[in-house]
Amino acid sequence: MGEFELIRNFFAAAPCAQGGEGVALGIGDDCALLDVPFGEQLAISTDTLVAGVHFADPCDPFLLGQRSLAVAASDLAAMGATPVAFTLALTLPTFDAEWLQTYARGLNLMAQTCGLRLIGGDTTRGPLCLTLTVFGRVPTGHALTRSGARPGDLLCVGGELGNAAGALPLVLGQRTAASMIGEPLLAHYWSPQPQLALGQALRGKATSALDISDGLLADCGHIAAASKVGLAIELDRVPVSLALEEFLGEAGAQQAALSGGDDYVLAFTLPEVEVPTLLADGWPIHVIGRVVEGQGVTLLDDEGLDITPAVHGYQHFRA
Amino acid sequence: MGEFELIRNFFAAAPCAQGGEGVALGIGDDCALLDVPFGEQLAISTDTLVAGVHFADPCDPFLLGQRSLAVAASDLAAMGATPVAFTLALTLPTFDAEWLQTYARGLNLMAQTCGLRLIGGDTTRGPLCLTLTVFGRVPTGHALTRSGARPGDLLCVGGELGNAAGALPLVLGQRTAASMIGEPLLAHYWSPQPQLALGQALRGKATSALDISDGLLADCGHIAAASKVGLAIELDRVPVSLALEEFLGEAGAQQAALSGGDDYVLAFTLPEVEVPTLLADGWPIHVIGRVVEGQGVTLLDDEGLDITPAVHGYQHFRA
Repeated sequence: MGEFELIRNFFAAAPCAQGGEGVALGIGDDCALLDVPFGEQLAISTDTLVAGVHFADPCDPFLLGQRSLAVAASDLAAMGATPVAFTLALTLPTFDAEWLQTYARGLNLMAQTCGLRLIGGDTTRGPLCLTLTVFGRVPTGHALTRSGARPGDLLCVGGELGNAAGALPLVLGQRTAASMIGEPLLAHYWSPQPQLALGQALRGKATSALDISDGLLADCGHIAAASKVGLAIELDRVPVSLALEEFLGEAGAQQAALSGGDDYVLAFTLPEVEVPTLLADGWPIHVIGRVVEGQGVTLLDDEGLDITPAVHGYQHFRA
Repeated sequence: MGEFELIRNFFAAAPCAQGGEGVALGIGDDCALLDVPFGEQLAISTDTLVAGVHFADPCDPFLLGQRSLAVAASDLAAMGATPVAFTLALTLPTFDAEWLQTYARGLNLMAQTCGLRLIGGDTTRGPLCLTLTVFGRVPTGHALTRSGARPGDLLCVGGELGNAAGALPLVLGQRTAASMIGEPLLAHYWSPQPQLALGQALRGKATSALDISDGLLADCGHIAAASKVGLAIELDRVPVSLALEEFLGEAGAQQAALSGGDDYVLAFTLPEVEVPTLLADGWPIHVIGRVVEGQGVTLLDDEGLDITPAVHGYQHFRA
């Protein structure tokens, strides 16, 4: 069986893999072809997951399938894009039909949840590694970027933070937890829900946005740098789950929420006047701070004192 | 230095990395944004190169930079697409500034040659592996696919075949050759020239096309299958270079041309009436056979006898 058949057979259940809205040509030719409606732009993001670095090896291929696509789709959410399609570059040490089938089931489930169609990719032999490239549509000029935050805007996040970081010791088998605590944390880690609908709802409202993947402080630093502003975060307003507080204690939960990675929750800035409508519409947004003149991210305690830690976030390489 | 800075610094010399024709937003946000003009579609292809599988490890990072992009861009040529942009997912075992700089120089040179702009990607730690996704524009409905070959069409290739396969023993250090022979073969291997202009010239003329990456016979099999036709190839008409014949002998050169991979030369079908104009315009096309009723690829000797070998081409996995 060649790599063409391999991809086709195991991923054939993907929603509309052979064509669908915006997909003019799917898997099987030298290129896929996308239609982009007049007045819209194509948003593109690429994410790589490496075994032993981004996920434990071995791990459950179904969960990996879900997670690998969710992580990539979250970048579309951060731009306010409507999901269209994705490609999958899969490097595998051996041909393992059961592994592929199970991975494809997880991937297809997340593809369906997100409204993403598999349109192509590559299958190669080598150390386990996955690169997914996702495509979305966004009205021209209305994508949410990192660079538009203005002093006076509020800083918000789209949900509780730190759950995935809290789950890490469970994923790695370093700790155990009662299922009431462990299950919701593990669900956040293995099956993050890209906030695609929230991203689209923020078009024309948010002045900047991104998805938190490297930790709140580090990622807010990207907004501050791109927008040439400062961000002041009030520690007490950073939302954490009860499960996380149970598991790590209050200080540990705060630490996970500030610097743990893998949240895939949106962080965004917007004028104060937009907040009541979004809350009234039921969006799960939490105001955690404010955009200020200056630069960088400042963390404040409940008395307004600066308690910014020295180093935040996870980086793959340090020079 | 974070991964953002890393990508920016080493690939900053890429032509128009921060925007250009069709690129509304380049590196540095959650997604890149592409404009697709009304009446055009976006062509997308993804290729992965794994160290030790697709290239020797270690190898010259400059040559790898050239080759990694050329291989991907060749798929745009095969669709008749005009190159626009690409993303790079780079997995590296260690942060090696010199390696990155040299790789980026090779990549940027090929990007300039092809007219491709780097718009994003991911940098991760792990076994050396590269995934490039390329984007091109093509007038809606005019992409060259594999599925339109009709009995009576001629089968052509865009140049000499087998040079890259011939170079492999040189690349792997298994053989040596005089520079008159070795240099042209190695140039084909390390710096294949995607036939982008030829692909665009074939729009509206070719009934099917692809780029030969897995060997002439194997790839022609893809056209035959997608078009539901047979292809008859005359062995004597398959073009090989003098250097390859010198190096491998006539039979060896033919074998490399038929079943060696990595040519990245176009194979395509078209009505006989189109050939004289293309030749008069100076396109380096060679008629090597004909589309026939039936299925699969048949290889004919100079007396028209069937000499088709049993197995062709390279596959990463066999089931």
